Amino acid sequence: MTSAPGLRTAAAPAADPAADQLTAGAATEPVLGGLPAARPARSGPGDSPGDIGRLVVSCVDGPGIVARVSGFLHRRGANIVQSDQYSTGPVGGKFFLRTEFHLPGLAEQLADLEDAFAQEVAGPLNAEFRIRDAARPTRVALFVSRYDHCLLDLLWRARRGELPLQVELVVSNHADLAADVAAFGVPFEHIPVSKATKAAAEQRQLDLLRDRVDLVVLARYMQILTADFLSRVEVPVINIHHSFLPAFAGASPYEQAKNRGVKLIGATAHYATEDLDEGPIIEQDVARVSHRSSVAELTRSGADIERTVLARAVKWHCEDRVLVNGRTTIAF
Amino acid sequence: MTSAPGLRTAAAPAADPAADQLTAGAATEPVLGGLPAARPARSGPGDSPGDIGRLVVSCVDGPGIVARVSGFLHRRGANIVQSDQYSTGPVGGKFFLRTEFHLPGLAEQLADLEDAFAQEVAGPLNAEFRIRDAARPTRVALFVSRYDHCLLDLLWRARRGELPLQVELVVSNHADLAADVAAFGVPFEHIPVSKATKAAAEQRQLDLLRDRVDLVVLARYMQILTADFLSRVEVPVINIHHSFLPAFAGASPYEQAKNRGVKLIGATAHYATEDLDEGPIIEQDVARVSHRSSVAELTRSGADIERTVLARAVKWHCEDRVLVNGRTTIAF
Amino acid sequence: MTSAPGLRTAAAPAADPAADQLTAGAATEPVLGGLPAARPARSGPGDSPGDIGRLVVSCVDGPGIVARVSGFLHRRGANIVQSDQYSTGPVGGKFFLRTEFHLPGLAEQLADLEDAFAQEVAGPLNAEFRIRDAARPTRVALFVSRYDHCLLDLLWRARRGELPLQVELVVSNHADLAADVAAFGVPFEHIPVSKATKAAAEQRQLDLLRDRVDLVVLARYMQILTADFLSRVEVPVINIHHSFLPAFAGASPYEQAKNRGVKLIGATAHYATEDLDEGPIIEQDVARVSHRSSVAELTRSGADIERTVLARAVKWHCEDRVLVNGRTTIAF
Amino acid sequence: MTSAPGLRTAAAPAADPAADQLTAGAATEPVLGGLPAARPARSGPGDSPGDIGRLVVSCVDGPGIVARVSGFLHRRGANIVQSDQYSTGPVGGKFFLRTEFHLPGLAEQLADLEDAFAQEVAGPLNAEFRIRDAARPTRVALFVSRYDHCLLDLLWRARRGELPLQVELVVSNHADLAADVAAFGVPFEHIPVSKATKAAAEQRQLDLLRDRVDLVVLARYMQILTADFLSRVEVPVINIHHSFLPAFAGASPYEQAKNRGVKLIGATAHYATEDLDEGPIIEQDVARVSHRSSVAELTRSGADIERTVLARAVKWHCEDRVLVNGRTTIAF
Repeated sequence: MTSAPGLRTAAAPAADPAADQLTAGAATEPVLGGLPAARPARSGPGDSPGDIGRLVVSCVDGPGIVARVSGFLHRRGANIVQSDQYSTGPVGGKFFLRTEFHLPGLAEQLADLEDAFAQEVAGPLNAEFRIRDAARPTRVALFVSRYDHCLLDLLWRARRGELPLQVELVVSNHADLAADVAAFGVPFEHIPVSKATKAAAEQRQLDLLRDRVDLVVLARYMQILTADFLSRVEVPVINIHHSFLPAFAGASPYEQAKNRGVKLIGATAHYATEDLDEGPIIEQDVARVSHRSSVAELTRSGADIERTVLARAVKWHCEDRVLVNGRTTIAF
Repeated sequence: MTSAPGLRTAAAPAADPAADQLTAGAATEPVLGGLPAARPARSGPGDSPGDIGRLVVSCVDGPGIVARVSGFLHRRGANIVQSDQYSTGPVGGKFFLRTEFHLPGLAEQLADLEDAFAQEVAGPLNAEFRIRDAARPTRVALFVSRYDHCLLDLLWRARRGELPLQVELVVSNHADLAADVAAFGVPFEHIPVSKATKAAAEQRQLDLLRDRVDLVVLARYMQILTADFLSRVEVPVINIHHSFLPAFAGASPYEQAKNRGVKLIGATAHYATEDLDEGPIIEQDVARVSHRSSVAELTRSGADIERTVLARAVKWHCEDRVLVNGRTTIAF
Repeated sequence: MTSAPGLRTAAAPAADPAADQLTAGAATEPVLGGLPAARPARSGPGDSPGDIGRLVVSCVDGPGIVARVSGFLHRRGANIVQSDQYSTGPVGGKFFLRTEFHLPGLAEQLADLEDAFAQEVAGPLNAEFRIRDAARPTRVALFVSRYDHCLLDLLWRARRGELPLQVELVVSNHADLAADVAAFGVPFEHIPVSKATKAAAEQRQLDLLRDRVDLVVLARYMQILTADFLSRVEVPVINIHHSFLPAFAGASPYEQAKNRGVKLIGATAHYATEDLDEGPIIEQDVARVSHRSSVAELTRSGADIERTVLARAVKWHCEDRVLVNGRTTIAF
Repeated sequence: MTSAPGLRTAAAPAADPAADQLTAGAATEPVLGGLPAARPARSGPGDSPGDIGRLVVSCVDGPGIVARVSGFLHRRGANIVQSDQYSTGPVGGKFFLRTEFHLPGLAEQLADLEDAFAQEVAGPLNAEFRIRDAARPTRVALFVSRYDHCLLDLLWRARRGELPLQVELVVSNHADLAADVAAFGVPFEHIPVSKATKAAAEQRQLDLLRDRVDLVVLARYMQILTADFLSRVEVPVINIHHSFLPAFAGASPYEQAKNRGVKLIGATAHYATEDLDEGPIIEQDVARVSHRSSVAELTRSGADIERTVLARAVKWHCEDRVLVNGRTTIAF
């Protein structure tokens, strides 16, 4: 059985840290969004009411899974607040479940709950799962180059409590946005990248991220991350691409869109994988344009879509709503 | 406990036909969409695979409901295919559940399943519920006046198997659309309505509908149905209003929209109630317009929205996705 | 100077029928939508008020074009009702103009007006132009295979007077939709196509179309038209592709979309050219989908987008709003 | 003939400053957006290329207007770059025109151009008009209370050169956002408002605005402006209302929307008038919501719509695209 980032299996309980550390391959296919649950984020403001937990489960479909899961929660005194499930096929398909539940005293009994779930449910079902305290925000690193629209929008949404995350640091290969980031009270790390220094720069990035974040967001970071970086970062990486993928993959999508004469432009948030612009899509949206729109105007309209789509994708990920299924995602 | 159309309660098992017949008040507030489950529609083509059942449940929220329901289904050999739930508040709120399940031999054991559910689950929870065989289409009457766009779209979608319904008849106060309806092989009843004949006309309509349909759809029927009709029809009535309610309620909404200079127009599908244009909203959508749009052009753009919104609302209703909650709906 | 379908130049007045007949290349690049103005459609119902003309002009941009055109119309007693213009660049760019004007007695003086415009305006500007009487509907042939949604929607919109066109005939390689078309009182030509009979079938199609239509619409016609057909048909051909081009060009776009996990699907109406799925885009739209949507459901949602997008594209073309600019279109 | 803010008439040439000053009534009905052209904004960065002018004209419709205007521009050596026109009816209707033109040395000859246009065109047509140098940004005051989303979005868009405006100052009845505004280098004026101090506060606001701004934007300013203020401010006032007007006018629109169970929420940008929430609508947009959305979530989704809609309305106004027509607007 292939495990995934942040997903426990019955055979690999949370007490075993190796269970959360993933192979290179797994990092590029972050099933269930891949948050390392065993290294919980520090408590933050958030706006989730207390005692709300989130359980995500993935296994081969078959009869009785919901009964087993909900029976477990009921026995533990948890009340299901919301629940979503999806199956790729009732017989032999893959089953995905996300449940929000209310359980008084959740924080204190989280570890115990995980162990019990592993033993009573995940083991018999041979399922992967993750349980999180909704009050603990996801710890995030934002990578950016010079375009500020996605970065500022995420920082602003985080500040006003719209996103259940804590921005731990901003990493940029340019110094331009240092003052803007400082205004939000967030550390800014300027790590220039050239062809010659790329390996060293990525090593420095990895050193900064280790044990500090649960998610990396590429908020218009214009450097390609190497396969080596992606395999070693050990947390999911979300990227925003400024086109409606798979159309206009690669460079200069707005010029491509102008030349092709499309009537809508779009943006795509996806998990970064070694195959550039090919990772599982989390969210997309579009805006209407016309023959009058210059490339500069497409770029501006596109910026509005980009920041909105990225904010949605990050929010859903941090709420454990995004589960990876091969090359695609389930977005509950 | 107030029952609702088509919802069984533990105290009113399916064997008692009166349990499905509702009071006048209930007909104007069709909780759970109110399909009379005990008088199933005749088997039709549809495109639901066999042995798929739908269970909708509504009760006061509390711990263990999902566990109890899913446990019941599991014991009966049913595999949950999809499930949605919503609660207006974990303590003392109202809980709504819709579950699709696969159960071999569903049709043969449906009555038995209902009885068991009433006894084992609905009774203890004091819940209303309904179980339907997805293979049995909803029987529908379409009411129309002269505008053909909503009527033809529904007939066409029904013919191509997009909607899980069977159009039993079309009722119109004009003869204009008789040939169009005949082309679809559907009975057309021309019942003129004037102020003097209104009561008789409604009586004739009720006579035609009795024991024959599970739903009435007003596909741009330009007569106001009386409170008496609504209380006696005993099945839900869906109406399409040609504005984005609550804006421009009443007559001539496109003229109103033009005069007010709005930049978007819309349409609203809702359950008909005695309070005109005030019934629970099922679905809405809008289209962009500009200062250039004349009232005639607003009317045309609006027609596209109307037929799309009404088709969605009818589809969702017939799939048991729409549950009424007071003045609003849950649309799973 | 390269002329285009239906565009007169000063050097090729309307009296010369050859001016409306185009080279193979031109037919695949229908500048200005390419209606053969010299062979006017027969008068039809339409809903344009009388005495409304449409003038489209295309030339190299430079100062004074609007002054010259509007001055001409004013001298002829025409009042400009609406006017749109676009330039790809003020110096050396390409200029496009579409003007609607009111001129009492338009029909009687149309030929004279054309000659005068050629001499006084188009000649000095070295411009292509076309003047049409808005009361004369575009004559259209609809090509279809088995999917009925685009065909029926166009026939229905034409019947209710929404589109300024006259459906002259429907051509299909299958007999399935004969009865549906007959119900609209439109001739239905069944021309089966196999690999062996393709050349003969296309010849028969061309024979049916000659001197009879101004536009061919491929309303989900599942046969590829040969370059030979496109070069000889002499009128523009509009196609509807069931994807958000350039994404998922080629076969089975909904399967491709499902496999790639996109969150929006779309449809694209474009002029057919020899390069399949590469012709100038007229209109596009999208609908939101989710991981739950099966290929069958994508296909259904897509059908709604397809018929809407195609209807818009056909309407705009027939209103002379679509002007081709290389690989793209201006859509006024 | 009733004049309007910033519109010259032939009888009131630009040399007469009184011509730009309007009656109390006019300020609440800002025909043509009402920028006082005679007191030009100071030159700013903007991103308009030089020598681009904008001409807006409004008069009773009749033949030859476009010919006269374009002939004038051609004689003066101007090349029309873009032009939009609209008429409420060809005979006796109201005609609106917006033209962008390129004229080398525009800045130097602007006054002369205005005088000549007044004499040669506006006089004979009895038209109102305004000519602006596109390089001169609109001077704007932003009013805000505590919600920061609209304010920060406008400040950010202004900083990155997306909007052709110069933010002269921010006025707030609370001190909360002082630091945020300071980070943009914009003066922040804290003017508390209570019932007792309202008159004095408005007087102080008027003193701050006089001769300094061309536009006031209420970016979620939660105080009602008095009729006295609106009549004396002498520049247009744009407001953002957090509902899809005319639905849910008045207080707490998101609560109203939740209670009514609508499936879409929206926002409306309009010119402020004495009749609260009744001013001419400039732009609107909506977002889909569901039964799951709490009032807090509606408020958040709504905030995204509000800032987008307001930014569009302000941009269009500053580009002279918005012309008031009674209770509605033309938005070119």
